[in-house]
Amino acid sequence: MQLDEAEARARFADARSATLATAGADGVPHLVPITFALAGSAGHGAAAGDDGTPVKDVVVFAVDDKPKSTTNLRRLRNIAANPHVSLLVDHYEDDWRRLWWVRADGTATIHEEGSARMSAVRALIMRYPQYEDLPPRGPVVSIGVSVWRGWSAS
Amino acid sequence: MQLDEAEARARFADARSATLATAGADGVPHLVPITFALAGSAGHGAAAGDDGTPVKDVVVFAVDDKPKSTTNLRRLRNIAANPHVSLLVDHYEDDWRRLWWVRADGTATIHEEGSARMSAVRALIMRYPQYEDLPPRGPVVSIGVSVWRGWSAS
Repeated sequence: MQLDEAEARARFADARSATLATAGADGVPHLVPITFALAGSAGHGAAAGDDGTPVKDVVVFAVDDKPKSTTNLRRLRNIAANPHVSLLVDHYEDDWRRLWWVRADGTATIHEEGSARMSAVRALIMRYPQYEDLPPRGPVVSIGVSVWRGWSAS
Repeated sequence: MQLDEAEARARFADARSATLATAGADGVPHLVPITFALAGSAGHGAAAGDDGTPVKDVVVFAVDDKPKSTTNLRRLRNIAANPHVSLLVDHYEDDWRRLWWVRADGTATIHEEGSARMSAVRALIMRYPQYEDLPPRGPVVSIGVSVWRGWSAS
C-alpha cells in the first residue's frame, strides 16, 4: 500500500543512511550511500524546484574530504551537469510482509563554502556523533525535495 | 579501502536486496529496491556491453505483476529509453568502521517472455522461497554487469 507523504517523510527522517542517485549529462545513473540530515524548507535557497514544484523539505549530505576539484567526484560532477537526484530508504526483511521503502525526488545544489554549508555540517554533527571528532571537510549538497513517495507491504 | 572485484562480487551475491537506479531520456534518475539473482554471463544475450565492455556477470530481477504495458512502470520505461543502470548494496552501521558498499554498473535488457525470462524466474524462486507460492508474473530484466566496485571502511 502507498504511504501518505507525512508517513513517508517520517520513515525517511528516522533512517540512518540513504542511497543517492545522480545521473550525468550522458544519462548514466550513479549510486552512492549517504548519511544525511532532513530539515524543513526554510533554509533552502530556492523556494521552488526548477520546474516550479514547491520544495517540501531539504535533505543535506556532505563530502567527507575536500576534493581537489568538484569535478573529481562523480556525484558532484553529475549534479553540476544535472541537478535532478533521487534518494531511497529501503527496509528489507525475508518476511516480505514487512517490506517498505521511501523515495524522495528533488533537485540538488552544491555548497562549497558559506553559511548554507556551515549549517548543514552542524545538522550532520548533531545527528551523527561520529562526525564530532572529524567533521566533513568537503562540499555540502542540499536537495530540495519536491515529492515524497513510499510503499509498505502491510 | 577499495574492495577487489572478486570480493565486491561476493558481497553483492550474498545480499538479499539491492537498489536499482535507472534514468529516463530526460536524465531524471529513479530508484527502486529489488530482489535479485546473480549468475555468470553465460545466459546473457549479449557478450559485451553496448560500449564494447565485456559482461562479467548477469543480475536478474522480475516485476511481480504483469503491467498492462511495459511503459506503465517507470523502471521499465526508463530502461527501454536508456539501458544504462546501476545497482547498489549498502551496509550501514553506526560503528562507521564497519561500513561497506558494492556497486554494479551495467546495461539492462527487458524480457517480456521466452526462455531468458523463464530461467531468471527459476533462479529467483531458488533464491527466495517467498516466490514459490506466487512466482513473479511480469517481465524480467537482465543486467549485464561491466564493472564491480566496492569500498569497505576496514
